Amino acid sequence: MKRSIGAKTIAHPVPVWVIGTYDPEGKPNVATVAWGGICCSSPPCVSISLRKATYSHGNIVNKKAFTVNVPSEKYIREADYFGTVSGRNEDKLGKTGLTGVKSDLVDAPYVKEFPLILECKLIHTIEIGLHTEFIGEIMDVKAEEDVLGKNGITDIEKVRPVIFAPDTSSYYGIGKNLSKAFSAGKKR
Amino acid sequence: MKRSIGAKTIAHPVPVWVIGTYDPEGKPNVATVAWGGICCSSPPCVSISLRKATYSHGNIVNKKAFTVNVPSEKYIREADYFGTVSGRNEDKLGKTGLTGVKSDLVDAPYVKEFPLILECKLIHTIEIGLHTEFIGEIMDVKAEEDVLGKNGITDIEKVRPVIFAPDTSSYYGIGKNLSKAFSAGKKR
Repeated sequence: MKRSIGAKTIAHPVPVWVIGTYDPEGKPNVATVAWGGICCSSPPCVSISLRKATYSHGNIVNKKAFTVNVPSEKYIREADYFGTVSGRNEDKLGKTGLTGVKSDLVDAPYVKEFPLILECKLIHTIEIGLHTEFIGEIMDVKAEEDVLGKNGITDIEKVRPVIFAPDTSSYYGIGKNLSKAFSAGKKR
Repeated sequence: MKRSIGAKTIAHPVPVWVIGTYDPEGKPNVATVAWGGICCSSPPCVSISLRKATYSHGNIVNKKAFTVNVPSEKYIREADYFGTVSGRNEDKLGKTGLTGVKSDLVDAPYVKEFPLILECKLIHTIEIGLHTEFIGEIMDVKAEEDVLGKNGITDIEKVRPVIFAPDTSSYYGIGKNLSKAFSAGKKR
């Protein structure tokens, strides 16, 4: 029997992504979001949502670019911090000792230490309400060599991404491999 | 050192969500998507993307409504199957013995057996490319009693959602609790 728990932003899984942008002075900023997802296969696109009040929001509007940086579990403390203070007031990369690297494809920095990053060119801006959704075309994906699998692309078990749980306000790692996709159904 | 792996739809984590819709004859259909995410806190909204060729795409355009159904690990086989065939050709709910329940808030059915469901009213349609992104306002969230936590809302550890890995085309469960959010950073 289902119980109503109200009109809330509860769904699983949602990501822990660090958005990289440049401010008007060219200083790199990073901010953590949980509202986002892949939104198109061709062209490859990702969407992320930010409140208008955030420093990153203005940066994306100005530069028409952002990066999506996927932290591994070992960087959860930094990623959590990046979501709790504003880049207007603090040099978040500087405080954590992490490094912003200028993308050679878009006008945004990526986090050198994170295992997987997406370089995005802004192609759509949708005003929804408290949040604005930015859709970015993925111009390239870059990954650390040590998270690549046998197929030459990444392996989630090596990336070790983080999952945000909006219901309990907690972070989780990925768990066990359940099955290959597009095959479990065929066993029916 | 980062290596380019090309402009691909690789990010982690991405969800395994089953979208519920009614066709023009009022027959419930379900289709699995991995492209989607929460996109606004107020009003609470979720976005999902579908190819124009899918049966669900037309159903959402017609009915201006859909549900997002979060399968638990035990329904991974059904969720995988729902993503591999079209509702034009098969009665997917009938074949799996799962049940479509009419929402009393929006013109779409939800999956009775899944632990967590979101009832959504279509408020934005964005043509991106191969995929169309549908943004739905979350009118209500409903959950099975046995996945509720002490706070009266859901607990991800009881929901046991599934994560899709686009790089290795595999499904994963959630893993260990890493930390509370908005606190790890304060320990710095």
